[in-house]
Amino acid sequence: MLNLESVEQASQLLKGKVHRTPILQSSTLNEIVGCYLYFKCENLQKTGAFKARGALYSVLNVSEQCESVITHSSGNHGAALAWAARQQNLTCYVVCPETASETKKANIRRYGGIIIPCGPELASREEVMREFLDSHESHVVPPYDDDLIIAGQGTMALELLDQVKDLEEIWVPVGGGGLISGCIVGAGNRARVVGAEPELAGETYESLQRNERLPPYPPKSIADGLLAGVGVRNFEILSRHQTSVFLVTEAEIVEAMRLIWSTLKIVIEPSSAVPMAALLKNKEKVRGKHVGVVLTGGNVQVDLAK
Amino acid sequence: MLNLESVEQASQLLKGKVHRTPILQSSTLNEIVGCYLYFKCENLQKTGAFKARGALYSVLNVSEQCESVITHSSGNHGAALAWAARQQNLTCYVVCPETASETKKANIRRYGGIIIPCGPELASREEVMREFLDSHESHVVPPYDDDLIIAGQGTMALELLDQVKDLEEIWVPVGGGGLISGCIVGAGNRARVVGAEPELAGETYESLQRNERLPPYPPKSIADGLLAGVGVRNFEILSRHQTSVFLVTEAEIVEAMRLIWSTLKIVIEPSSAVPMAALLKNKEKVRGKHVGVVLTGGNVQVDLAK
Repeated sequence: MLNLESVEQASQLLKGKVHRTPILQSSTLNEIVGCYLYFKCENLQKTGAFKARGALYSVLNVSEQCESVITHSSGNHGAALAWAARQQNLTCYVVCPETASETKKANIRRYGGIIIPCGPELASREEVMREFLDSHESHVVPPYDDDLIIAGQGTMALELLDQVKDLEEIWVPVGGGGLISGCIVGAGNRARVVGAEPELAGETYESLQRNERLPPYPPKSIADGLLAGVGVRNFEILSRHQTSVFLVTEAEIVEAMRLIWSTLKIVIEPSSAVPMAALLKNKEKVRGKHVGVVLTGGNVQVDLAK
Repeated sequence: MLNLESVEQASQLLKGKVHRTPILQSSTLNEIVGCYLYFKCENLQKTGAFKARGALYSVLNVSEQCESVITHSSGNHGAALAWAARQQNLTCYVVCPETASETKKANIRRYGGIIIPCGPELASREEVMREFLDSHESHVVPPYDDDLIIAGQGTMALELLDQVKDLEEIWVPVGGGGLISGCIVGAGNRARVVGAEPELAGETYESLQRNERLPPYPPKSIADGLLAGVGVRNFEILSRHQTSVFLVTEAEIVEAMRLIWSTLKIVIEPSSAVPMAALLKNKEKVRGKHVGVVLTGGNVQVDLAK
């Protein structure tokens, strides 16, 4: 049974092996939203995303006989697993949609990951992986629906709560739900965890409304890290804690992303801007509060604006 | 006479009033250049540029009778002075070329600065300012050719040397020379200060070659913070210390900027990428060394790459 102790154990094991990422603050953004914002820069994490936490924790837990790991991922989890595997001298295979961004594919290869191409739908990923495993022996590291992954991602919340003593809420983006469920377990009663999701990938919001886990929507949102459907374990944790999830439009995501680029001077990918977009849309919910905002990743190509 | 004590005094006065900006490191970039790089993030400084240091130090030194300050600036110094003036409840006028970037003009206005438009050439700026001062009383804060400004900018070097104990060199961009001359005075014998300049704005390099201060080149480089000609005091300090300055092309600046965006995940403006471009071009000069790279500002609009 996954609990606070599981996250604390992960935190102990990961200490010194992943970055303790910095917190940024901005009086301009505090004024705009009307609260105290603490931006947790997981875009500055190893591999450019929080995914390094769960991936490394999983790899540190594989059996000694294991020679390779495999996952399916549209990007950041794949790169994180490739990086983690390299730390332990393991081979890493990543089943990755051919439609994934070039930046994210290059990031997987940079750490020595071997890409196995598949179609853009979840069904295709799973089929390609099954076929591969029929002929190869490899340890599967799921992207989010897994206790080790959830515990690993949850270490971000412990760290944030250690860095900001009077934090009241933690706003995080929701894709498969690995990060948010880890944060809920890690934060316990110390802070309320709130989710934010693109309308175009809003199956977690809808699943919570209907109290029934829905399959992922077609992959249409610019927030390419959030296209997965919510996992079984993840949905169970979100439901049990009656977690609030807010929806935002694509335009709101782009606006929030530009605001963070120009104000905080850091590069974040669209998925990372989703909680800020939700805060800009729901200011009355956080007035005067101390709110953590998790910037989950920075793996995106930017250029000078025209 | 400007000396280390001047910079230390500035450092004392500015303590807690400007950010102690973080240092970023990247094993990827260390491998590429073949040395240990310490990126000093002055793009995360108040107003998004190191200019906040000199501007605030100047404003803290004006007489009590003073009600307004004025400067000419294509951007970052103007915004920094507007911000500094607001801290002390002073009015701030900024003579600013109509061709300055919208980002930089918006930044001046954001802090309450009043823009007085002029033409793009230095001569026009000076003429417009003289005319204004004929009819208004205001304290002039020069952008770089000034002891208080030089001492203020030099505090960056003291801070960097405090943060990185075994630093051997500090690479900085050169425009009017306020930052580099402040760094030379502040670093003293503790670290060698090296300049980097765009070929298209290479009048400091050429002035040092000829041992004669040249006027600025026509404003053509993408590095819009480095279009000023080197100042009298600044040139004197650079000459006296036989400072090396390296030239880079526009393409090299853009490549270095993209590399920093994608690797360090921070937004820097073109001027800030000039030292990194020079390092990429002169790797043999720094092999194995511990090198500070000053990222001077982040006031630029970026967008998703096509």
